[in-house]
Amino acid sequence: MSKGTPDRVPDDGLTTAQRRHRPALIVNTGPGKGKSTAAFGTALRGWHQGWSIGVFQFVKSGRWRSGEQAAFEALDRVHRETGAGGPVRWHTLGAGLTWTRAGSDRAAQAEAASGTWAEVRDALAAQAHTLYLLDEFTYPLTWGWLDLDEVIATLATRPGVQHVIVTGRNAPQPLLDIATTVTEMTKLKHPFDDGQKGQAGIEW
Amino acid sequence: MSKGTPDRVPDDGLTTAQRRHRPALIVNTGPGKGKSTAAFGTALRGWHQGWSIGVFQFVKSGRWRSGEQAAFEALDRVHRETGAGGPVRWHTLGAGLTWTRAGSDRAAQAEAASGTWAEVRDALAAQAHTLYLLDEFTYPLTWGWLDLDEVIATLATRPGVQHVIVTGRNAPQPLLDIATTVTEMTKLKHPFDDGQKGQAGIEW
Repeated sequence: MSKGTPDRVPDDGLTTAQRRHRPALIVNTGPGKGKSTAAFGTALRGWHQGWSIGVFQFVKSGRWRSGEQAAFEALDRVHRETGAGGPVRWHTLGAGLTWTRAGSDRAAQAEAASGTWAEVRDALAAQAHTLYLLDEFTYPLTWGWLDLDEVIATLATRPGVQHVIVTGRNAPQPLLDIATTVTEMTKLKHPFDDGQKGQAGIEW
Repeated sequence: MSKGTPDRVPDDGLTTAQRRHRPALIVNTGPGKGKSTAAFGTALRGWHQGWSIGVFQFVKSGRWRSGEQAAFEALDRVHRETGAGGPVRWHTLGAGLTWTRAGSDRAAQAEAASGTWAEVRDALAAQAHTLYLLDEFTYPLTWGWLDLDEVIATLATRPGVQHVIVTGRNAPQPLLDIATTVTEMTKLKHPFDDGQKGQAGIEW
């Protein structure tokens, strides 16, 4: 319930204000639901602060994130028309790719992931956004499609105050090491266990 | 990564379509971050489906959920002006209440919780919404401010297809028993551990 009370105050030479505004690197991982939805819910808070938000999708399929994308595109329009909130830029993967480990064209998928990561890297260098949402970013890391060392170094040395949220299962340890917040979502019960398929409005 | 593939198909006499459209009761619990943000992220999907969404806040403080509220009020306006998405109705607790276990006026808090729950009960009976977000609902249950048996019976027998998402730590076992999906958010690392206070755009 507490939202602002630290458990202890460290001897790190930072003022409370400096510590409060430290750039966040949030990782939502684990096998349960809620990793991406929590990231998008947090992005609503950034939107309300007027932050520029960049969403980078590292998974591509037909309905994937369509609800979130429609809502954030609507919020971006609200910003442009009324000045409320902040701008949202949504980056999808290359068109037509289906993003699975067993995909038929892994080389094309790896290339698309590299291209999207290059967009993130350029945006970070240019300080293009205040909040970056790297959705399902752990998968290309885990599958060796991106250079983990280079990704970690880029994130760890990003300039200014740029917050980053990463989602996906099995976040690599070096990413956890440089994160400021790590939450593991654990499945206690899920309707797929009972043979239920996903439904619109809940799973996408 | 899979969003629609059941682990097994049960012998429950339901068709796949019936099972797919079974009303969801989703519980996001545990000590980690992301319980409420995941709920609001899921609600973006419902909004995109054109669902009527009712948000019922069982916690009240100055900045609490202000980002989420601003964003969903903007989405509600988008719906009214353009027809996109669905309507959103946001129910806050009684004005001026601060909602903590150590609050100075517990009787008033318990009464406010009862009043908000009565609104939920009436809305469920009237089938007013397709998605209900009962934010921080576990606390008045845990603290004995609501009749748990009555709450469980009301949720378990709700008519029609009405999806419910409940958030909060320490969800009571009877609630988990009737849930279709339960996710536990576990804190692996959090900046409050290092004495960092919450910051705008991330914690609210």
